[in-house]
Amino acid sequence: MKEIMAILRPNKMKATKDVLEALGFPSMTACRVLGRGKQKAIVEELKTCISIEDKDNSKGTMRYVPKRLMSIVVNDEDVSLVVEAIMKINHTGNIGDGKIFVSPVDDAMRIRTSERGKDAI
Amino acid sequence: MKEIMAILRPNKMKATKDVLEALGFPSMTACRVLGRGKQKAIVEELKTCISIEDKDNSKGTMRYVPKRLMSIVVNDEDVSLVVEAIMKINHTGNIGDGKIFVSPVDDAMRIRTSERGKDAI
Amino acid sequence: MKEIMAILRPNKMKATKDVLEALGFPSMTACRVLGRGKQKAIVEELKTCISIEDKDNSKGTMRYVPKRLMSIVVNDEDVSLVVEAIMKINHTGNIGDGKIFVSPVDDAMRIRTSERGKDAI
Repeated sequence: MKEIMAILRPNKMKATKDVLEALGFPSMTACRVLGRGKQKAIVEELKTCISIEDKDNSKGTMRYVPKRLMSIVVNDEDVSLVVEAIMKINHTGNIGDGKIFVSPVDDAMRIRTSERGKDAI
Repeated sequence: MKEIMAILRPNKMKATKDVLEALGFPSMTACRVLGRGKQKAIVEELKTCISIEDKDNSKGTMRYVPKRLMSIVVNDEDVSLVVEAIMKINHTGNIGDGKIFVSPVDDAMRIRTSERGKDAI
Repeated sequence: MKEIMAILRPNKMKATKDVLEALGFPSMTACRVLGRGKQKAIVEELKTCISIEDKDNSKGTMRYVPKRLMSIVVNDEDVSLVVEAIMKINHTGNIGDGKIFVSPVDDAMRIRTSERGKDAI
């Protein structure tokens, strides 16, 4: 089992979710995050940035770009399908398209049924 | 070391926390997430759903169920105790009871004391 | 590749970000979390605590300390540099300095360029 963590533009979440559901992967967890890639806070995106005041530092504020973190746990054989689908939907060619990380997951449990492993995802 | 990530009903967090503390696991991190399992947005839970407007898609809004993500890092020998305790507290038998994922963690550090590994968790 | 997850004081985020950027690690994802370590809710920090009402439990409320979760994915050879830098910046010697966890990451993709692995982080 693998966890696929995708850091995406907020306005791409619905399309991503719809495609993954159509492919048979309706389960996911989503979270609001602030992200910054190698290109850092590019001017265009800065306009929509959230500024969090840093009370210990009067010199300035932190600037990150609002993103969504989508987490999906899938079986090993489904990783490349899900990754390719997320890349296809989220690619615009512009800075800020986001990143995907794949990490190992040892086990999964569905609390309602006590199913474990492959049956639980 | 393992990270136990539990996606739970918000109203089960206090009971879960109390039991884990009583078992000797007071350390945890909690985060508000939006989740969706295989059963997707069931009608009953939809009433309390958060709708996030999707500005790029005028057709509709995304619907997820508000959940809490609880993350606990424990030693390998404690994984089954913590998992079983979370399952016991969170099982209602209804859709939406949540899921648990167990993932490998290589190392841990407590910043205040510079303790590492088992001593840090 | 490894994911370095640091649970830090909110007012240390800017200094941590500035040092990591200066060291050549500008990419990161940040998220608001509520945390509790072994010392639980110490009196001093409780004053700034967030109380989340637990509707199913009239006996009381949950108390956690607001923290920031910073996630950085780096190559294996950079783990100790990044961890040491985060510990240096965030160490005050007081309870609540935070924790760092290091976890394995199998693969990474930059959506804009389709770069994978080391080239994507």
